[in-house]
Amino acid sequence: MKADAGKNKQAAAPKTAVTPTRSEDYAEWYQQVIRVADLAEASAVRGCMVIKPWGYAIWENIQRELDAMFKATGHKNAYFPLLIPKSFLEKEAEHVEGFAKECAVVTHHRLVAGPNGGLIPDPDAKLEEAYIIRPTSETIIGASFASWVQSYRDLPLLINQWANVVRWELRTRMFLRTTEFLWQEGHTAHATREEAEEETRRMLDVYATFAEQFMAVPVIKGPKTASERFPGAVDTYAIEAMMQDRKALQAGTSHFLGQNFAKASGIKFNTKNETEEFAWTTSWGVSTRLVGGLIMTHSDDDGLVLPPRLAPAHVVIIPVFRDDEGRAKVMPYIEALAKELRATRYADRPLEVEVDARDIRGGDKQWEWVKKGCPIRLEIGPRDADGGVVTMARRDRPVKDKVVVPRAEIVATLPTILTEMQDGMFERARAFRDEHTHRIDTRAAFDAFFTPKSAERPEIHGGFAMAPWCGSATCEGEVKDRLKVTIRCVPFDSEREDGACVVCGSPSPRRVLFAKSY
Amino acid sequence: MKADAGKNKQAAAPKTAVTPTRSEDYAEWYQQVIRVADLAEASAVRGCMVIKPWGYAIWENIQRELDAMFKATGHKNAYFPLLIPKSFLEKEAEHVEGFAKECAVVTHHRLVAGPNGGLIPDPDAKLEEAYIIRPTSETIIGASFASWVQSYRDLPLLINQWANVVRWELRTRMFLRTTEFLWQEGHTAHATREEAEEETRRMLDVYATFAEQFMAVPVIKGPKTASERFPGAVDTYAIEAMMQDRKALQAGTSHFLGQNFAKASGIKFNTKNETEEFAWTTSWGVSTRLVGGLIMTHSDDDGLVLPPRLAPAHVVIIPVFRDDEGRAKVMPYIEALAKELRATRYADRPLEVEVDARDIRGGDKQWEWVKKGCPIRLEIGPRDADGGVVTMARRDRPVKDKVVVPRAEIVATLPTILTEMQDGMFERARAFRDEHTHRIDTRAAFDAFFTPKSAERPEIHGGFAMAPWCGSATCEGEVKDRLKVTIRCVPFDSEREDGACVVCGSPSPRRVLFAKSY
Repeated sequence: MKADAGKNKQAAAPKTAVTPTRSEDYAEWYQQVIRVADLAEASAVRGCMVIKPWGYAIWENIQRELDAMFKATGHKNAYFPLLIPKSFLEKEAEHVEGFAKECAVVTHHRLVAGPNGGLIPDPDAKLEEAYIIRPTSETIIGASFASWVQSYRDLPLLINQWANVVRWELRTRMFLRTTEFLWQEGHTAHATREEAEEETRRMLDVYATFAEQFMAVPVIKGPKTASERFPGAVDTYAIEAMMQDRKALQAGTSHFLGQNFAKASGIKFNTKNETEEFAWTTSWGVSTRLVGGLIMTHSDDDGLVLPPRLAPAHVVIIPVFRDDEGRAKVMPYIEALAKELRATRYADRPLEVEVDARDIRGGDKQWEWVKKGCPIRLEIGPRDADGGVVTMARRDRPVKDKVVVPRAEIVATLPTILTEMQDGMFERARAFRDEHTHRIDTRAAFDAFFTPKSAERPEIHGGFAMAPWCGSATCEGEVKDRLKVTIRCVPFDSEREDGACVVCGSPSPRRVLFAKSY
Repeated sequence: MKADAGKNKQAAAPKTAVTPTRSEDYAEWYQQVIRVADLAEASAVRGCMVIKPWGYAIWENIQRELDAMFKATGHKNAYFPLLIPKSFLEKEAEHVEGFAKECAVVTHHRLVAGPNGGLIPDPDAKLEEAYIIRPTSETIIGASFASWVQSYRDLPLLINQWANVVRWELRTRMFLRTTEFLWQEGHTAHATREEAEEETRRMLDVYATFAEQFMAVPVIKGPKTASERFPGAVDTYAIEAMMQDRKALQAGTSHFLGQNFAKASGIKFNTKNETEEFAWTTSWGVSTRLVGGLIMTHSDDDGLVLPPRLAPAHVVIIPVFRDDEGRAKVMPYIEALAKELRATRYADRPLEVEVDARDIRGGDKQWEWVKKGCPIRLEIGPRDADGGVVTMARRDRPVKDKVVVPRAEIVATLPTILTEMQDGMFERARAFRDEHTHRIDTRAAFDAFFTPKSAERPEIHGGFAMAPWCGSATCEGEVKDRLKVTIRCVPFDSEREDGACVVCGSPSPRRVLFAKSY
């Protein structure tokens, strides 16, 4: 998670605010957008980031909107312990395999002064049973569910938790994969298989709706193949989005857990017929990774571009004046305008308006807000105040493309402009994804599709391939090993279509989505 | 954190919903209120609780209101790593003493299969430097502040974090003291001592306002004595509340850290005069302990009593009918009423209305909502529907005290009733505190005040003693050892008054607040 490279390159008067550009070095561009937009930074803790106020405010907006959607679908929030007894992990065999491997292990409960002056774990305070920091909470929540669920009347049990989790990842990248990350994890228990499957699909739909309507990120929904399932799940469904380097990002997953975890945790209930049965459970989650997906879908070579519905500020007003006389003219005009705008609503919430009155150069200020991705910038100088106008710039247009608008008009039309920007971002992202999604039918075409187009841009390949697959894990493994391409999902809307597996030529019932991924 | 004791006592037709009552066994009553109101339960993790939906919803309301107050005073949220490198703790000497002692130490990053079949920490995955789980974040946030603050223009820096922390407590009690707890921690840096001191006081005031206006808990504000300060702080201010057993609960603290942490972490800035100085910092926090304070201030022998401004539901509507004909009459009437009530506002938010249509006995249902502390219960049967009325019960009146009110009147007056209940709870709590706050002037009277009144109720003593103190730590220590009484704070409103120390008789400049505490 280096965040400093390229820091000094900007001195050479770049044409763009971010160096390098997307086409020069996509991975480094991503890190630089995070830096110039002041979203997050590396920390002294291996693989962990500090989420800075502007980045955290985006996450808060994501939380607020998702939380409302979870509650509207009948879920309630609760909180379970951070630490999981080692023995809990041992209960579900596949789950152990998946999560015991790389996790933070707590072995002592005290530090004492060591022989060389520093602190050491106190040998007298070794825990009898080690704890791990939750990498996910199926096992600890399962223990509670086992006591909460007694009768069919207790079902369905619909719980969500907002929490931090830790997975000791080898390679980390800010927002996309960090050792500690923030997320929500839904956990539900149901009386029947059908209800649990319905819940799994319902929450996947909630994620897809959120991604498309709030993040302006088009997604493809469908089940994962067996090899990509959550450890212990019967079925894992995902939403997959295309980033600007044409790679896929798994943006959210919803798992149908069958009775596996209910059996491991003892979640049983008395039915109406007074028999005892194991419950059917689900779990589903999205994380701060969504912020990474947001950045990589929309941002450009001038920095972050935020969909208005998740922007911490919709509008920034930048006063421009040289002296006290100018100030006396501009500031009251701005305060009145800000007040009026804050009384205006956009997407069922008040407009969020920043007035940037800091005593720094106007040009620097303007560029700062471009880089931070604020949807609308209003520059106001003495002449604007005199004329009853504002100078408006939109983040989805070139930086120097500014228009002078009467004050009354801006107040009346801003919500419409923001809606237009939000819709435009979604349409642009969808057009990009569709442009780079191809139907591929032969092994040769498949290999060519995923082969980089040039030595200068080794990361740029074809994009998403909708190709026939025979269903065998061997073929799936082969393309993963050979091309680093995986099956992202079997899209729900992929229709029955007889074909020949793009790897081995055996019969294939339908096309699946192949892509390189994060 | 035993939560099961007394579970079966209720079978013997108790006169109250909670057994034992406050006067029988206050400590056990507290645990039972948590159980019958379904707020939280013990977990398999030592000293950690599971916060159940009704308890977590109270915390969510606390968060929402406090968060708005923090933002209104210019603070922004951010997020810092859960894990703190051991070496960070070693930087501030007093802080080490205070926090290195009992904390969760992470020493390994992997589990592997052990010789006996279970999982063990992988000897090959031992961390070079151990991490501790944050007990508080001064050191890790200080490391970020050191790079964020360069110039006086970067100050003040006003940050808040909502997070979980872990302190390996020996004795735990649900909400009041748990190994893991949820809290917010504010961290700010300022250019001058005065500004930092002002911030410390401002945030104490925010806490006091929140406690009194939202929790309906009257508090006393003032600085702690040296022995009760936050480790590393120059000054610690607290808000102290009286519980129904007359003990004090420290409900929030705000620390002026001087330049201690700035020096330990290297938080320096260039002044306007181009000199380099260390910043002045503060920190302040409240936690899920507030929920414990809420319970112990207001609840009664029938269970939880919630101040309306923090109640997850203001009104529960309970349908009462025996057959399908009754249902057909009652349910449409209730749905229309609920809709109308939800469109009504109370304290700047929509009324939260629950309709409890579960298929269980009406009496059980009614008592469940009494125990959960829902402010208003509306029972509606076919006759109510026919007559266009509702049968209303208030949680601040005896359970059987019900009034029949015309439907239109209930819609119009509910916000006023809730305001009246909120104010009434505050006044009752204040009267109780004032009744049990005494001015004490002699050692004999002091000892008598803090001696239990009877063998049956060993926990009940006088309450709060406003008594002269000479300022010596010896006298402070003596009463702590002898009577388990501590100086809670030196109240801001304690005026200059020449007196004789209640312990040693030496001159005292003013009275301080002595009490037993949680």
